[in-house]
Amino acid sequence: MMVNSSQSLLLKEIAEKTAQAARNLGGLSLSDRNQAIEAIAQGLETASVDIITANELDCQLAAKEGISQPLYNRLKLGETKLKATIKGVRDVINLPDPVGHISIHRELDEGLILKRVSCPLGVLGIIFEARPEALIQITSLAIKSGNGVILKGGKEALNSCQILVKIIREALENTKVSPDTVQLLTTREEIRNLLDLEEYIDLIIPRGSNEFVRFIQANTSIPVLGHADGICHLYIDKKADLETAISITVDAKTQYPAACNAIETLLVHQEIAAEFLPKIAEALTSHQVKLKGDKLTQNYLNIEAATEEDWKTEYSDLMLSIKVVESLEAAINHINIYGSKHTDAIVTEDKNSAERFMNQVDAAGVYHNCSTRFADGFRYGFGAEVGISTQKMPPRGPVGLEGLVTYKYQVTGKGHIAATYSGENAKSFTHKDV
Amino acid sequence: MMVNSSQSLLLKEIAEKTAQAARNLGGLSLSDRNQAIEAIAQGLETASVDIITANELDCQLAAKEGISQPLYNRLKLGETKLKATIKGVRDVINLPDPVGHISIHRELDEGLILKRVSCPLGVLGIIFEARPEALIQITSLAIKSGNGVILKGGKEALNSCQILVKIIREALENTKVSPDTVQLLTTREEIRNLLDLEEYIDLIIPRGSNEFVRFIQANTSIPVLGHADGICHLYIDKKADLETAISITVDAKTQYPAACNAIETLLVHQEIAAEFLPKIAEALTSHQVKLKGDKLTQNYLNIEAATEEDWKTEYSDLMLSIKVVESLEAAINHINIYGSKHTDAIVTEDKNSAERFMNQVDAAGVYHNCSTRFADGFRYGFGAEVGISTQKMPPRGPVGLEGLVTYKYQVTGKGHIAATYSGENAKSFTHKDV
Repeated sequence: MMVNSSQSLLLKEIAEKTAQAARNLGGLSLSDRNQAIEAIAQGLETASVDIITANELDCQLAAKEGISQPLYNRLKLGETKLKATIKGVRDVINLPDPVGHISIHRELDEGLILKRVSCPLGVLGIIFEARPEALIQITSLAIKSGNGVILKGGKEALNSCQILVKIIREALENTKVSPDTVQLLTTREEIRNLLDLEEYIDLIIPRGSNEFVRFIQANTSIPVLGHADGICHLYIDKKADLETAISITVDAKTQYPAACNAIETLLVHQEIAAEFLPKIAEALTSHQVKLKGDKLTQNYLNIEAATEEDWKTEYSDLMLSIKVVESLEAAINHINIYGSKHTDAIVTEDKNSAERFMNQVDAAGVYHNCSTRFADGFRYGFGAEVGISTQKMPPRGPVGLEGLVTYKYQVTGKGHIAATYSGENAKSFTHKDV
Repeated sequence: MMVNSSQSLLLKEIAEKTAQAARNLGGLSLSDRNQAIEAIAQGLETASVDIITANELDCQLAAKEGISQPLYNRLKLGETKLKATIKGVRDVINLPDPVGHISIHRELDEGLILKRVSCPLGVLGIIFEARPEALIQITSLAIKSGNGVILKGGKEALNSCQILVKIIREALENTKVSPDTVQLLTTREEIRNLLDLEEYIDLIIPRGSNEFVRFIQANTSIPVLGHADGICHLYIDKKADLETAISITVDAKTQYPAACNAIETLLVHQEIAAEFLPKIAEALTSHQVKLKGDKLTQNYLNIEAATEEDWKTEYSDLMLSIKVVESLEAAINHINIYGSKHTDAIVTEDKNSAERFMNQVDAAGVYHNCSTRFADGFRYGFGAEVGISTQKMPPRGPVGLEGLVTYKYQVTGKGHIAATYSGENAKSFTHKDV
């Protein structure tokens, strides 16, 4: 108990220091922020050997404890990955400045000017599982957007995270950005305490498994940028071009099955089921995809039954559930009930059906005649992807740097007071956009 | 127990019906939505006498139970207020359409087009205290923006709410908007259940006291548009024009002290304290403002001591706490610690200080040489105000109709698949804005 409360006190101090440093960062020019990012890139280059050594230590310890191969691969940094990550840091320098963008500029009355200006959020809480390069990426994006970061990595990556943050903070010493902008937490208990710091932390970005993200979302009142599930659908309409439908289905399921934008359920209009199902089954089976189907699908294919549970499952694997639907409406309903508001697509040559689908499906991405796999910040041309959000309010879908800023209203007057604009002789506002 | 669970089941059914109706509404043209709003205006006009009679019944019952005068005034509709409200409904017709606005339009590759399009949120949960005209306003704004509404009014306004919703639903019968778009809840228990319906309700808008809003915020995981506190500050810099400072202080405190954008604390730079404090005390006292001050302020004024508690208090009344600060930084720090991120202002002739204040104060509104009382959707020229948000993420500050919409990404292709853009012979994206 005493340990916890002193720890949470310490964390509060760290958070307060970070918030203070972030406020100073928020006032710096773009070139000051970019210089700090370049200093980080150089620091990482110079210390490459040390970083790789520390990471190898993590890998050895992890291997001894018998972590899974995929987790090991994510943990392993190595020279190639480190070089690519440092290149990624320099790419951030070339991104447009997300801060200071004016989205409203309006004269309210003569001499009374309203501006809505983008500004940093403040302090980001970044909680990630194994991957140490995530720490580097998100820190450079945070500095670019004028935010402080409090980082918490998985325990497997402890040595890697410690040396990375040490190098980053040392690199910042000779820049206008305070080293206090970047903080590392190292104990598991601190995650819980971090989630309670709504006074200091403005946004939590979790990077990890669905369960991990779900835990974070359920245990904080701080806004969370992320998604737990990616249950994406592809609906093959009765007016679909079947060759297109096969090509998109195979791509959306097999091009990278572990991705959140891969499909989990295929919906097929009953009028084309007899012709389409055997064809798509052959194509998918040749890609090692295991199929499950509802009763109607089983009339055409000799496959395992799909249960209610399947419609709610993100396989993240070479597995696909198939359902035959009687109409476009039935497809839309199924998606709105079981989907996770991530990305859902229709294949059809009928423009009206496509429009209806895109209007009525409630998801961050609604696609027509293309693969759900395009749902990605880089593919959208954002230059960076901070996360993918499946919540309803913006930012929604793939989120670039603009997800790390908010805005404030600046009003400048010459002694203007509200009394002038109310009562009997009330003056009118001009409301002229500048 | 049985009552509760059957009630929550019933509420779920209502919510599902509303969501379905809202989805249809979301697909309607602007003119269909506007026609529905006009039908509501006409319905209210025709039934004016019945509405006023029902409202009078509410007022009589409330008076018998001895409710406070301000609450009674808010409850009372009367002919003038009703007429003004119906005019407000017709004003909504003239607002620009918030739905279908394209904020990104980009070619990802030949024939592969990305659009970011604004769309309705879905279903709004509106929980308000006494004022029955809030029901009318918010319902017309909801229909304009393509959203369903589930309404819950205070028990004092029960008869008013019931007749209003009955008339609105009847008016919708002859339009393309389904009456199921608008639902009324009438029991207090239903509020709790409503707050748990994150599956169906996309945004909660509370209208009422600070305690009321705080209760809602603390008891739902659904996004809440609103603010609990409005602790706004005015800082008088050492380079302030003192006449301007006096005029703005009096306006910001007295023009409408119960408003959330009125100031609660005045910060005064020590270099001008001796000259400014007696003058402002005289001006404020002549407006019946009661003053409290910190030790330094008490050196100049014979007033009650302001305690730590005062810096955290929204008086909503003719009361003001005053603190003498040693620097601009001290003023900024005080505001960032005690402010509620609503609206804070500086009076100064020094442009650099103004800029620093506006950069470093963390609030939805940062003002220079004008009254905090301008923080208002109508004054900003939004045509409507849905609420004022003090959260960090957008929408922030006064929120107009755009607070009732979100966006989705629509991607249209011609059979495009992700495999084309990865691997050895990966094609490049064009990323050309259209």
